[in-house]
Amino acid sequence: MHEKVLKAVPFVNWLNGMKKTKLNLNEVFVQSVDMFGPKVGFIKFKTVVTDVDGDSRPVVVFMRGGSVAILVVLVCKGKEYGVLVRQDSVPTTQPLFPAIPAGMLDGNGNFGGVAAKELEEETGIKIHASELVDLIELAYPDGKYEGMYVSVGGTDEFIRLYYVRKEVSEEVLKDLEGKETGLAAENEKIVLKVMPLENLWSYTSDSKTLSALCLYQNLKKMAKII
Amino acid sequence: MHEKVLKAVPFVNWLNGMKKTKLNLNEVFVQSVDMFGPKVGFIKFKTVVTDVDGDSRPVVVFMRGGSVAILVVLVCKGKEYGVLVRQDSVPTTQPLFPAIPAGMLDGNGNFGGVAAKELEEETGIKIHASELVDLIELAYPDGKYEGMYVSVGGTDEFIRLYYVRKEVSEEVLKDLEGKETGLAAENEKIVLKVMPLENLWSYTSDSKTLSALCLYQNLKKMAKII
Repeated sequence: MHEKVLKAVPFVNWLNGMKKTKLNLNEVFVQSVDMFGPKVGFIKFKTVVTDVDGDSRPVVVFMRGGSVAILVVLVCKGKEYGVLVRQDSVPTTQPLFPAIPAGMLDGNGNFGGVAAKELEEETGIKIHASELVDLIELAYPDGKYEGMYVSVGGTDEFIRLYYVRKEVSEEVLKDLEGKETGLAAENEKIVLKVMPLENLWSYTSDSKTLSALCLYQNLKKMAKII
Repeated sequence: MHEKVLKAVPFVNWLNGMKKTKLNLNEVFVQSVDMFGPKVGFIKFKTVVTDVDGDSRPVVVFMRGGSVAILVVLVCKGKEYGVLVRQDSVPTTQPLFPAIPAGMLDGNGNFGGVAAKELEEETGIKIHASELVDLIELAYPDGKYEGMYVSVGGTDEFIRLYYVRKEVSEEVLKDLEGKETGLAAENEKIVLKVMPLENLWSYTSDSKTLSALCLYQNLKKMAKII
């Protein structure tokens, strides 16, 4: 287990990242590791860091690496629609909680490819990775941030946010609404929701949906995206 | 420890929340508990749920309860400024990562009071809880959501987002910029950043900052806030 943690991509990235800070790492105490089959899924650990003033403090980290999420804008007869996937969230006890399509990264750096694959799995919408607009790179150029950070005090999780725009027919739009999708093998049950883009923010309090909308609206205002 | 977990507010809320869903809880295996002094801080557990179709799946939960965050808009000579607190984030290895002021809830439901206290601790800005505009209640009326959910697949964490607007003099604005704050007792070191509100989204990829801005901008568009 020890070996697997030391080789897990998020942990390796974290150790390298810590070396670039002015903080000193005194110890790392791994409290639990959740395996996803043969792969390391989540690592939970405690650490103690010392800053340049010599002051120490404990930090607890829930390590789960990166993910991707896609703001899909469908255009039908000149009107814009957003696409949400609804699924039960056990941690928040929210039944069929709506959020933009998303999925975990498995360690490799091919963000766009993973995003296109997740989008097809969760919604059936097929796109090529090259059609995706990288909102993170546009908003934070030169790799300033890897993604949107969900909760910087407790987890390494970052979400690479994408945007894709597609003209669709009324039939396609109708077929998507209420459609049931998800990976049967993982007992992942999803119901699609299609709604006017302008109402998306008032329909869900999901961080990736609101953050993607914020970047989309502000980048649009600056004419950096269509 | 067992007793303390069963009495912890986030865990009690979660058990009650699960009873309202159609999911069946088969087991809860607590993997680790982080104490903050005498109080339960974080609980990490695994559970297996069965849905109405009889299909089961494992879920891992990093339980940390709720927090509050405040979008502070300072108005000086007709121009709007946003306030960010910058502090080292060990989980993401981001030095002096900027985000709107925030703090954890300690279990009680007095969100506004905690928000006002955290704002003063982190920035020195004194406000009364009654001055806070509850963006969550405005965007999701009738208690639809407790807050913005940071990562619904892995944690119960929700952030109650607030907004406060204050006219200030040039002196106050100048004093805030670069000021060092934070609770010495917790070795919490914070540097303030004051910047034009319109640029806030491009300065940080923090979920609570982007989500609060999204709600603020859209509620403003609908004339629900000033």
